Amino acid sequence: MKIDHLAVVGATGAVGREVCTILESRNIRPEKLTLLASERSKNREIVVFGISHKIEVLTERSFDGVQYAVFSAGAERSREFAPIAVRAGAVVIDNSSAYRMDPTTPLVVPEINPQAVFQHRGIIANPNCSTIIMNVAVYPIHRVIPVRRIVVSTYQSASGAGAAAMEELRTQTADVLAGRRAVPTSFPHPIAFNLFSHNTPIGSDGLNTEERKMIDETRKIFAAPDLSISATCVRVPVPRAHSESINLTLERPMSPADARAILETAPGAKVVDDAEGNYFPMPIGASGRDEVLVGRIRRDPSQSDGRGLDLFVCGDQLRKGAALNALQILELLVR
Amino acid sequence: MKIDHLAVVGATGAVGREVCTILESRNIRPEKLTLLASERSKNREIVVFGISHKIEVLTERSFDGVQYAVFSAGAERSREFAPIAVRAGAVVIDNSSAYRMDPTTPLVVPEINPQAVFQHRGIIANPNCSTIIMNVAVYPIHRVIPVRRIVVSTYQSASGAGAAAMEELRTQTADVLAGRRAVPTSFPHPIAFNLFSHNTPIGSDGLNTEERKMIDETRKIFAAPDLSISATCVRVPVPRAHSESINLTLERPMSPADARAILETAPGAKVVDDAEGNYFPMPIGASGRDEVLVGRIRRDPSQSDGRGLDLFVCGDQLRKGAALNALQILELLVR
Repeated sequence: MKIDHLAVVGATGAVGREVCTILESRNIRPEKLTLLASERSKNREIVVFGISHKIEVLTERSFDGVQYAVFSAGAERSREFAPIAVRAGAVVIDNSSAYRMDPTTPLVVPEINPQAVFQHRGIIANPNCSTIIMNVAVYPIHRVIPVRRIVVSTYQSASGAGAAAMEELRTQTADVLAGRRAVPTSFPHPIAFNLFSHNTPIGSDGLNTEERKMIDETRKIFAAPDLSISATCVRVPVPRAHSESINLTLERPMSPADARAILETAPGAKVVDDAEGNYFPMPIGASGRDEVLVGRIRRDPSQSDGRGLDLFVCGDQLRKGAALNALQILELLVR
Repeated sequence: MKIDHLAVVGATGAVGREVCTILESRNIRPEKLTLLASERSKNREIVVFGISHKIEVLTERSFDGVQYAVFSAGAERSREFAPIAVRAGAVVIDNSSAYRMDPTTPLVVPEINPQAVFQHRGIIANPNCSTIIMNVAVYPIHRVIPVRRIVVSTYQSASGAGAAAMEELRTQTADVLAGRRAVPTSFPHPIAFNLFSHNTPIGSDGLNTEERKMIDETRKIFAAPDLSISATCVRVPVPRAHSESINLTLERPMSPADARAILETAPGAKVVDDAEGNYFPMPIGASGRDEVLVGRIRRDPSQSDGRGLDLFVCGDQLRKGAALNALQILELLVR
C-alpha cells in the first residue's frame, strides 16, 4: 500500500488521535504524514511510527502535495477546508456530517457499500458513529431478508462529543463522588451518574439531529430510501463505546438461529451472545476493538408473524464509529 | 387515616428505607410500627417520625397483631412469610415478584387499576419497577386510544439490585478513577463506566426475567392480554432512577400534541418536554421525585399511518418504582 502524502486534519482531537494509532496498528505508513490542527494545538507533537510529528496549523496552503486527507475537525472546518484540499489535488475522507447527505458524495461503510467509494468527486463521507455501528449489525440480515422497519434506542458514550467530553465524564464523576456539584461544560447537562437525550438540536418533527442522521444515513448506505426507522438517541456515562438496542421488522420471517449464523460470518461483526452465562455485548468489551459486538439475538415476541428480531450491539465509537471506518475507506482507495 | 399496626419487612434494604422515608413525607403514621429484617440487621435502629425503632428479626411470630405488612425482602422471603402474615390476619403488600402473576393476587398501580386492590385475598402485589414507570406514562394514552404494541428499551439504575449495588456503583467508580481494577460483587459485570444486559436469567425464548416481567405484568395491569410488547432491559451506571425509551403503535392515529395534552393531566406523570431548550427527562431530575417524567413526545417517523408515538421517561426506581407505589396501595386500603 503506497501513500505519498497523507494529511490528518484535527489530529489532536479524540478521533484524530485514534487515526494516528490505527495508522500504526494497520501499518498504513505514508511516505509523508502531515498532522494539522487549530492554532490552539500549534507546536504540540504526536509520535507516529516512532517519529515525532509537529502539529501544523491548518491553513489554505496546508494541502499542497497532499494525496489523501482525513478530516475529523467538525462540519464547519470540513465545509471550509475540504474543497480547498480537493482543489489542491487531494482525496478527502470526511468524518464530519458536512457532506454525508450530499447526493454526489459517497457515504461509505466498507463492509456494506465499498463500491461507492470509487464514485467520489474528491470527497468521501464517513457516516455518523451510531449509524455505522447499527449498520454493521443490521446490513448482513438486510442482505438476506430485507429489513422493513428499525426501532433503535442508543446508549451513546461521551467520546462522541470529543476528547474534552471524555475528560468531563472523568472529572465530573470524581467531583460528584467527592460531594462536589457537577459542573457541565462540554455537555449541557451533568453526565456523571446521569444520562440525557442526545444534545443536538430538535427539528420541527421532534427528532434531534443525531436521530435524523441515523435515519437518513442508513437509508443512503443501504440504498433503501423506503426503510422505516424510529431512533431515540441518548447519552450515557460511558467513555468510548456506543451501545444500541435494535428492534427489526423483516419482509419475511427469519429465525434467531439463522440471524446468528449470518452474523457469525458477517464482516466487522462479532457475535457475543452467551445466554447461559448472561454474557452479552458491553462497552468495556467493545472499547479498543475493531468489531461491532452483537448479542441478545432473539425473536421479538411482539411480532407474532415471526418477522421480528431483537439485537443488542456495542461498538467502539472512536474506532469503527469514526477513525477505523475512515482508514478502511483509505485502504479501499489505495488498494 | 388510621392504621393500628404496620410492619415493614426488609426495613434496612434500599426499598425498606425508602418506605420509612415516605411514611413520614406522606404522614402515614401507624399507631404501632414494626421494622423487620434478617438476623444481619439485628439491633440496628431506624428513626421514623422522630422515634427510634429497633430492627426486629423476621420470624414466624413477627405478625401477631399486624394489620398491614409491606414486604421488600425478595421473592424467597415473601413466599415463606407472606402466607404466615396473612394467616395472622395481616394484609400484605408485596414488593417482590413472588405473587405478581398469581391470578388470584391483584397487581396494582394505583393510577391505573385502583379498584383491583379490593379483590385481594390477603396479598396485593406491587409491580416490577420498570413496569410501573412505563405504565404510568403509557396507560393514559392507552385509555384514550388502545395501545397495540410497545417496543421498550430500558436504562436501569443500580438501585434495582439493592443498597449494596448502589454502593458498588460508587466504590467501583472511585476504584476505576484511581486506576484500580473494577471488582464486581453485587453485579456479575463491572458497572462503573459500563452497562450490560439486565443480569436476570434468560429463558428459552431469549428474554431475561426482567423483560418477561415487563411484558406479563403490563398485560395484567392493563387487563390487555393481547398487548404486544418487545422489551430490552439494560443496566446503566446511574444510582436510582430508571429511564425508558418507549415506542408505541396505537389502534388509531394520535397526534403528539394530543398525547402531550393527555399526559399533562395524567395522574403520577409530569411532562418534561422542552425541545427548544433541549431539556427532557433525566435520572438526576427524577431521583427523589414521586412523578414519572415524560418527554420526547413525538410522532414515530417509521409508522407513516400516524399510529406511532415515541416517548422517553424517567422515574425514581425506589419511590414510584417500589416504595411509593406500595404505600399508595396502603392508602387505598386504609382510605
